[in-house]
Amino acid sequence: MPVSPPAEIGMALVEVDTPALIIDLDVFEANMERMAKAVRAMGVVFRPHAKTHKSADIARAQMSRGAVGVCCQKVTEAEALVDAGITNILVTNEVVGQKKIERLVRLAKRAVLGVCVDNSGNVDSLNDCAAAHDVRLDTLVEINVGSARCGVSPGPAAVALAKQVASSSHLSFGGLQAYHGRAQHIRKFEERRLAIESAASQVRETMTQLAAEDIVCARVTGAGTGTWQFEGASGIYTELQAGSYLFMDADYGQNEDGDDEWSHGFGHSLFVYSTVMSLPDPARVVVDAGLKSMAFDSGMPVVADDPSTEYARPSDEHGNLQLSASSKRYTLGDKVRLIPGHCDPTVNLHDWYVGVRAQQVEALWPVTARGALF
Amino acid sequence: MPVSPPAEIGMALVEVDTPALIIDLDVFEANMERMAKAVRAMGVVFRPHAKTHKSADIARAQMSRGAVGVCCQKVTEAEALVDAGITNILVTNEVVGQKKIERLVRLAKRAVLGVCVDNSGNVDSLNDCAAAHDVRLDTLVEINVGSARCGVSPGPAAVALAKQVASSSHLSFGGLQAYHGRAQHIRKFEERRLAIESAASQVRETMTQLAAEDIVCARVTGAGTGTWQFEGASGIYTELQAGSYLFMDADYGQNEDGDDEWSHGFGHSLFVYSTVMSLPDPARVVVDAGLKSMAFDSGMPVVADDPSTEYARPSDEHGNLQLSASSKRYTLGDKVRLIPGHCDPTVNLHDWYVGVRAQQVEALWPVTARGALF
Repeated sequence: MPVSPPAEIGMALVEVDTPALIIDLDVFEANMERMAKAVRAMGVVFRPHAKTHKSADIARAQMSRGAVGVCCQKVTEAEALVDAGITNILVTNEVVGQKKIERLVRLAKRAVLGVCVDNSGNVDSLNDCAAAHDVRLDTLVEINVGSARCGVSPGPAAVALAKQVASSSHLSFGGLQAYHGRAQHIRKFEERRLAIESAASQVRETMTQLAAEDIVCARVTGAGTGTWQFEGASGIYTELQAGSYLFMDADYGQNEDGDDEWSHGFGHSLFVYSTVMSLPDPARVVVDAGLKSMAFDSGMPVVADDPSTEYARPSDEHGNLQLSASSKRYTLGDKVRLIPGHCDPTVNLHDWYVGVRAQQVEALWPVTARGALF
Repeated sequence: MPVSPPAEIGMALVEVDTPALIIDLDVFEANMERMAKAVRAMGVVFRPHAKTHKSADIARAQMSRGAVGVCCQKVTEAEALVDAGITNILVTNEVVGQKKIERLVRLAKRAVLGVCVDNSGNVDSLNDCAAAHDVRLDTLVEINVGSARCGVSPGPAAVALAKQVASSSHLSFGGLQAYHGRAQHIRKFEERRLAIESAASQVRETMTQLAAEDIVCARVTGAGTGTWQFEGASGIYTELQAGSYLFMDADYGQNEDGDDEWSHGFGHSLFVYSTVMSLPDPARVVVDAGLKSMAFDSGMPVVADDPSTEYARPSDEHGNLQLSASSKRYTLGDKVRLIPGHCDPTVNLHDWYVGVRAQQVEALWPVTARGALF
């Protein structure tokens, strides 16, 4: 069931079939360079999250600019990237169930792999499977620093789990996973800063308790596009996982920047390209991109080149552009760039990236791990 | 990039990897039989919408129970189904842009195909391309009967477009597409009935005007799972397009049934199967199905076998089950069936259906047209 690409290299942008996932390569590369420069200046390891892009080509572009490897969220996502040549991956998630654990352990024979835990029984399951396959698994303890998703509490619960990992025959304690997901989309800069200050202090306290038990915590990993400058400057986090900085979805665009060195300058580089397919009335045109080509969990997409026009009322394969007096005039067949509200689940709806520079298609990259759900 | 299936035939349900799209085959078949019986009784043609299931296997199951063919929303969706042997398809949508029109016209050489129009320039484009390929295209005029999406106004505008179609050298006027999408999710039965009464009367008036111009309108097609019994009984609609009746998403489950013969009895047959992957606190467990395995545009999924537990706060690969005093007790690795809020965009996130009967995997069907966006 492979879906053929919506474009050919060399084609003019306006010839690209729609809906399609397009990347403005100039902005995309500037975003990568900017982040590479920042993490070098901060002296931290950069391991961007590949759940954003799911692409081996993009992972390679990040690694050529200094990223040590990537993060994945799912075992099959990691498998797809390893198959495509990306062999340094941290699974920033718990892996539960015998089948998934088997796949993870087999993958650890082919890649530098890490995994997270937050449950004692799961630590035993991982160790049993690793022992059966004679593999040593790098295992990080996930702590809940404010996101209230997965993770054990910082402090004694984390220390107990780290001790169990460290004493397991086929696991190595690889450090702490301390991602504060909820902090990423807090609008106010100062509130985001405070959230990460709190997270870092919970990590610090846990590290102190680990040290008291003679457990070395060599790595503290976390951070996202909303907060990475704080983790990077914390002196606590050693590794940053930001991913969305590449594309900058419409939601991240609503975060208030600070006056720090790194807040500004990341641009929207990812768009869903769509066609005006119906002109039902003077106040409205219909485009061919809806629920099956964009994610709406973080709000409506933004019309990139016409801010006075609003995208509204999506259905599966349609969306409405509500026109105002200052909107562009649209005719049938016009192509429109939409900035998705949330890039990660939008990318997962597409099989191809179309890389564009100077209105021309320069690259076609498969979404390597599209649909890698398990 | 084909994704391998999450199950094998013969496997116990609990062994299926997650997140996975599972079908309760007993309920699914009962839904199909019930609809087949209804449309037979009504004496209308049944052409279910394949944008719901995107599956050649399911299209065949519907056609073996009397469906004349299926509807598609996209040219590539139709291509995928034609390639898989389903050769009677109505594209219930406008096809705009030279590339898409070319594909449509080429497909019309391999299948009994219809397409919709709502624009005079588009009629010319279709005719030019059909002429170039020496194909005759069955072309329906879409009228807006209340949905305010695509479609021309009923009455004179529709008649003018039908005349243009009928006088085009390589197009045949195939009738009226009159789908009232907005009516489908009106909660009150009587309000849905009135909405379709209004739609049918707009169609009737348009047909009268067509007849006055000696244009034969042989087909009026439309209807969805929320209203099909009204179109079926209208004496105006000749063909029904309902699709979601197969699966019955959580949103349709909230529509108020009437006391008519056909309102009751369609059951939820489609589930996203998920695993409890973290037990962070006594009031909450985390499952491995989130924004990348379910659609949330029509609300949260419903926990199928535990109504006192609520799914909440999805992220890309996680969701939270909020437990109450009467919730089940969950342990790590437990599997949970979730009823998606909206089936169509949920199906499009998966590559495989896992058909289950008596807790055992009986069928594995590819989502044939998954990701067929163009």
